[in-house]
Amino acid sequence: MKAVKAAIGVDIGGGSVKCGLVTESGKVLKRVTFPTNPGAGRERLLQDLEMHVRALRNDASHKRVQVMGIGVGAPGPIDVERGFVYIFPNIPGWKNTPLKKILEKRLKLKAYVDNDANAMALGEAYFGAGRGIQNAIFLTLGTGVGGGILVNGKLFHGTTFSAAEIGHLVINEDGPKCGCGNRGCIETYVGSQYFVDHVRTQLSRNPKSILHKWLKNGEQLSPLLVSRAARAKDALSQAVWIRTADHLATALAGLINILNPEAIILGGGIAQNGELLFAPLRKSLKKKAFPIAADSVKVIPAELGVEAGLVGSAALVFASKSQ
Amino acid sequence: MKAVKAAIGVDIGGGSVKCGLVTESGKVLKRVTFPTNPGAGRERLLQDLEMHVRALRNDASHKRVQVMGIGVGAPGPIDVERGFVYIFPNIPGWKNTPLKKILEKRLKLKAYVDNDANAMALGEAYFGAGRGIQNAIFLTLGTGVGGGILVNGKLFHGTTFSAAEIGHLVINEDGPKCGCGNRGCIETYVGSQYFVDHVRTQLSRNPKSILHKWLKNGEQLSPLLVSRAARAKDALSQAVWIRTADHLATALAGLINILNPEAIILGGGIAQNGELLFAPLRKSLKKKAFPIAADSVKVIPAELGVEAGLVGSAALVFASKSQ
Repeated sequence: MKAVKAAIGVDIGGGSVKCGLVTESGKVLKRVTFPTNPGAGRERLLQDLEMHVRALRNDASHKRVQVMGIGVGAPGPIDVERGFVYIFPNIPGWKNTPLKKILEKRLKLKAYVDNDANAMALGEAYFGAGRGIQNAIFLTLGTGVGGGILVNGKLFHGTTFSAAEIGHLVINEDGPKCGCGNRGCIETYVGSQYFVDHVRTQLSRNPKSILHKWLKNGEQLSPLLVSRAARAKDALSQAVWIRTADHLATALAGLINILNPEAIILGGGIAQNGELLFAPLRKSLKKKAFPIAADSVKVIPAELGVEAGLVGSAALVFASKSQ
Repeated sequence: MKAVKAAIGVDIGGGSVKCGLVTESGKVLKRVTFPTNPGAGRERLLQDLEMHVRALRNDASHKRVQVMGIGVGAPGPIDVERGFVYIFPNIPGWKNTPLKKILEKRLKLKAYVDNDANAMALGEAYFGAGRGIQNAIFLTLGTGVGGGILVNGKLFHGTTFSAAEIGHLVINEDGPKCGCGNRGCIETYVGSQYFVDHVRTQLSRNPKSILHKWLKNGEQLSPLLVSRAARAKDALSQAVWIRTADHLATALAGLINILNPEAIILGGGIAQNGELLFAPLRKSLKKKAFPIAADSVKVIPAELGVEAGLVGSAALVFASKSQ
């Protein structure tokens, strides 16, 4: 019997680290999550990680699974070739860490490190909405807006591995101030915090919105709540989704005109609202992007949800073998 | 003696067609220009082109030059694989023309057809400012703003060959109305007609500008005149260039964040004003683009001027041989 090939995927987030044993076909055979514990410092996180990865490897050998390597998706800018982490935002002590080198030395496994949004993009390309698509743009619409670009089935990294910072594409030079210093980045319209802030402003002008009642009843204001309200025909909430789709369409039209991709894959909280977002988005794109490019692009939801980072990190290993 | 290898380059514009015999090292051995004569129809233009290309080939055989093929740069969207012209803007009768097929049949030469801005980008990459650079973005800032993207030394065409429509990247959703239907495309800030219109508006508010005097003396309002005035310390003209650089920086920062190129090469009239544009542009880019990508990109003027289209069209032939 031929051994199943797998990789260990590691998705490092600000709050928790997800590790898993992922087969070449994207199945998660075993998973473990532990707290990032940023205050405890870098060495502690590395030791925790080492321990859990060793456990996953033991498990693999019992299951006759061959572990081909370890892939890590992490926030912030990374030198992908050297597996060098310049900085982990929100995790102190990680400035200039040669993570690939450290992991390979401690674990005796080939290690691959990439930006988390890139890992998610690769996950969707290998195992999710992007299967069979060679040229795609992936966006994750969360608190921030991250991106990954696939060209000929491979991640496009650019000259210094910092391509696909799509969240800070400016769509309105006079728009809201962004954390990056610019005004009117697409993140300031579709990032979930900006989204919620916008709804809050609108609420003060719309005393009749059903959201007032729901918030009084203890509900938390979130994109999900606004989508529930829109489905309940709340005018304010419906308008908010149309506005969000319209701004997102401006950014995506720019990407379509520049990169002419086969597909744009949207993940993250804001994208989980189905046709509330996708229907006006597709309509608006037809108006805003060049016809030939707009007619040929599929705009589709991501399929892997919170799994994208984990299986995508494992896919970093599989991708390296297929080159 | 080994025969010199060359290609025939053809640059079809709205007013004139430039043809030339171009060596593999980018030298134009012979050139001819004839009027496009749009009113006379497609067949007339094809016949004129055929006649001039035959003359260039005769010339080549006398010079012991081996003609490897013909490359054509033309405005508008083109199916590069089939050499199929969907439409030539401003030249009636060219809807859905299988130009590659027609030229190969009539001339018995391998033919390659691409968008004119792509041909210019390839020209700069092979023979101009982009020599030795693998990943670059080329922009031509004329009446319109055209673009070409080079990835790993090759033109990046996208799924339906319509990538690099950079002129219609929106930088301000509330900006000036653009011919494409959107508002605030970068073309509405740096396209030469919009540029001149903006200066005219500013002139009505600035009675002291030296431009008033120059215009009364019969000078024509143009980007070149505004650059002369800026060099003569005209406050309005200096402010106009800073504004132009600032808007252009917003668009280029977007491109840098998305594609993380080694170089951005700027050609066309607006870019011919040297440090008046490039100095504030580079300064503004440092503020607007992500540091790692901004620090590694060179922003440089194109070198080939009006030759870019001609030698770039010939380069389409050389590029096809190097694949």
